Amino acid sequence: MPESLLPPVKGIRLASVPAKIKDWSRDDLLLIEVAEGASVSATFTQNSFCAAPVMVAKEHIAQGNIRALLVNAGNANAATGARGLSDARACCSAVAAAMNVRAEQVLPFSTGVIGEHLPLQRLLDAIPSAAAELIESGWERAAKAIMTTDTRPKKAQRLLKIGSEEVTVVGIAKGSGMIQPNMATMLAYVATDACIAQPLLDQMVKEAVNVSFNRVSVDGDTSTNDACVLIASGVKGKPIHSPADEGYSALMEAITQVHIELAQDVVRDGEGANKFVTIQVEGAESSEEALKVAFEVGNSPLVKTALYASDPNWGRLVMAVGNAITHSLDTEKVNIYLDTVQVVQAGGRAVDYREELGEQVFSQPEFTIRIELGRGNASEYIWTCDFSHEYVTINAEYRT
Amino acid sequence: MPESLLPPVKGIRLASVPAKIKDWSRDDLLLIEVAEGASVSATFTQNSFCAAPVMVAKEHIAQGNIRALLVNAGNANAATGARGLSDARACCSAVAAAMNVRAEQVLPFSTGVIGEHLPLQRLLDAIPSAAAELIESGWERAAKAIMTTDTRPKKAQRLLKIGSEEVTVVGIAKGSGMIQPNMATMLAYVATDACIAQPLLDQMVKEAVNVSFNRVSVDGDTSTNDACVLIASGVKGKPIHSPADEGYSALMEAITQVHIELAQDVVRDGEGANKFVTIQVEGAESSEEALKVAFEVGNSPLVKTALYASDPNWGRLVMAVGNAITHSLDTEKVNIYLDTVQVVQAGGRAVDYREELGEQVFSQPEFTIRIELGRGNASEYIWTCDFSHEYVTINAEYRT
Repeated sequence: MPESLLPPVKGIRLASVPAKIKDWSRDDLLLIEVAEGASVSATFTQNSFCAAPVMVAKEHIAQGNIRALLVNAGNANAATGARGLSDARACCSAVAAAMNVRAEQVLPFSTGVIGEHLPLQRLLDAIPSAAAELIESGWERAAKAIMTTDTRPKKAQRLLKIGSEEVTVVGIAKGSGMIQPNMATMLAYVATDACIAQPLLDQMVKEAVNVSFNRVSVDGDTSTNDACVLIASGVKGKPIHSPADEGYSALMEAITQVHIELAQDVVRDGEGANKFVTIQVEGAESSEEALKVAFEVGNSPLVKTALYASDPNWGRLVMAVGNAITHSLDTEKVNIYLDTVQVVQAGGRAVDYREELGEQVFSQPEFTIRIELGRGNASEYIWTCDFSHEYVTINAEYRT
Repeated sequence: MPESLLPPVKGIRLASVPAKIKDWSRDDLLLIEVAEGASVSATFTQNSFCAAPVMVAKEHIAQGNIRALLVNAGNANAATGARGLSDARACCSAVAAAMNVRAEQVLPFSTGVIGEHLPLQRLLDAIPSAAAELIESGWERAAKAIMTTDTRPKKAQRLLKIGSEEVTVVGIAKGSGMIQPNMATMLAYVATDACIAQPLLDQMVKEAVNVSFNRVSVDGDTSTNDACVLIASGVKGKPIHSPADEGYSALMEAITQVHIELAQDVVRDGEGANKFVTIQVEGAESSEEALKVAFEVGNSPLVKTALYASDPNWGRLVMAVGNAITHSLDTEKVNIYLDTVQVVQAGGRAVDYREELGEQVFSQPEFTIRIELGRGNASEYIWTCDFSHEYVTINAEYRT
């Protein structure tokens, strides 16, 4: 299937340039210009060691009227102390000067190695040329410019009609390791040309992230630099202020689908990942409990190596379930299905289960592990991947 | 250094036999006889899917007067439902018949693959011959009989004097994957010929396990079959009833040291492990917080692959610390030391830190990562290991 190219989003222009942030010659600096009057909302990592650009971006977004986003790959500017903060601010000032806006109207983002200072001068040198090259059709190049260990760019799009107006939703994301976003994500940028009031957009990004980036895990580690930004340039259609307004439902659906597609793509391209696995937990007492079980199963190294081996080692599944709920679980109520194959029945091996059936499911590139707890009515899901030799290789060699 | 053989413990006899629990010819069934009047205490896994033998052992130990322990390797008899329970009880009855005790005086233990039924008849056939071969000098063979993916037996010993009496403490353990015991351990058996009252022994095993097996992690997964048993055969010396009694302190110290030595050895022999790393957390608000940080760092796949690569990737250390305490951590108070080399100072790279210094520490087979949080006075430690290609290989091929 030939990939469809990302369409432009009215009111948004992008430029990707090589700034030599690492010793490579690829694009590694992305500048995004947002039309005056646009709404911009974001969620950020909950990691206490959040990076300098995250701190600055939080500060700036709170003041509103965002006009530009600057994203660099290759260096996270995290755990870099006062100099890190000053570097992030210097980048915002340079963008402001080149684009004739205020530094507080610029959001900085960084991704890459933690604990090293930005090669500031190279960024400052590259920013003016980026500002001079802004184009509406810059999304494809942007998706590549923000990659680090990703093996491919991640992008999604939806077109919809609100009244007579054709509206576009486009998103790009990067991320493949240090992935278990917590109320945030790796870097993701979703934009629409629709007009959405700021308070509503703030709500929409939270809702969309909650069912997308907050449901994925590659290795259970939450990054210092996670951020997901939703931009509504406001060029198309009537302003949408509340969920009752015309077009809200269709737009929220499109925005959510773009988030989900990007989040799933982050897992599919997880470091060393060969399998894309949905962990569905049903019959939990609460959503929190369902998610706890799902992440315990999805993050267990023993489960993940079994996924890698295409080995339906259901003993490891029950082990992980039993670790998530250590006291009150009635194991005799637990059933587990591999796609439609029941493997665990009443806490033990299902009567009709045969190893070959489980192997057939596990040997597929994508499948679902469905766990019934029999405790209540809450259900949740997450998306995860296997743990392979390639994961170890990638992460044992990342800095060298 | 030639290993010293485990000495006999008066009042305890052991026999190891090959029962063909898997398709192998090694010893895989261990019978331990305990003298009449001995005290026996144990801690067990907190996993809800605790194995059938764990359920039966808990039931029997509550009744006291334990006279025998039966341990099989190769099959965990976990997630095996009613038949699993009945199999475990049948083993106890067979031991009782062969040793002329009651079935309730027998503790069963199993370790190996989860979710398969015991080859019961083979165990029943082997039990009488084991009962006929009980000897005091059976510890060395016992340490080997209980192994699964372990690459070597784990054993420890201490000799001490209480008054004029020479007292022995001997311990064996098995375990190298699915290792993050929770108030329990993989299988461990520690025995002394001292005389310790049952209520005091119950307290002693909890204390010893808390500073030993509860401080180790290979992969963060808690097994369904963890158990640690402490036996006082009561043959030597005067009965010890309280911590104030003569000999208690020296004995508790010896017992604790044996537990620690075994727990550390489980980590050293962790699946695919090449490094033995102590994570020391200081300046926490509470012990719980210190342990949470230590386990978050010690279980992070990104930290563990960096350990494997001998790469002092301290960005991953701060990432993990920031994930353990997501809201109130003042990152500027955080310092991190690799042995004596300060790598993080006030939340950022230490001024004098040079990469070569970190690499020197990380290239050692054993070292300490010390994390100062600057929040309070609590400190804790855990022992962990690296995450290697061998871990993936072992766990991707375990059942095949």
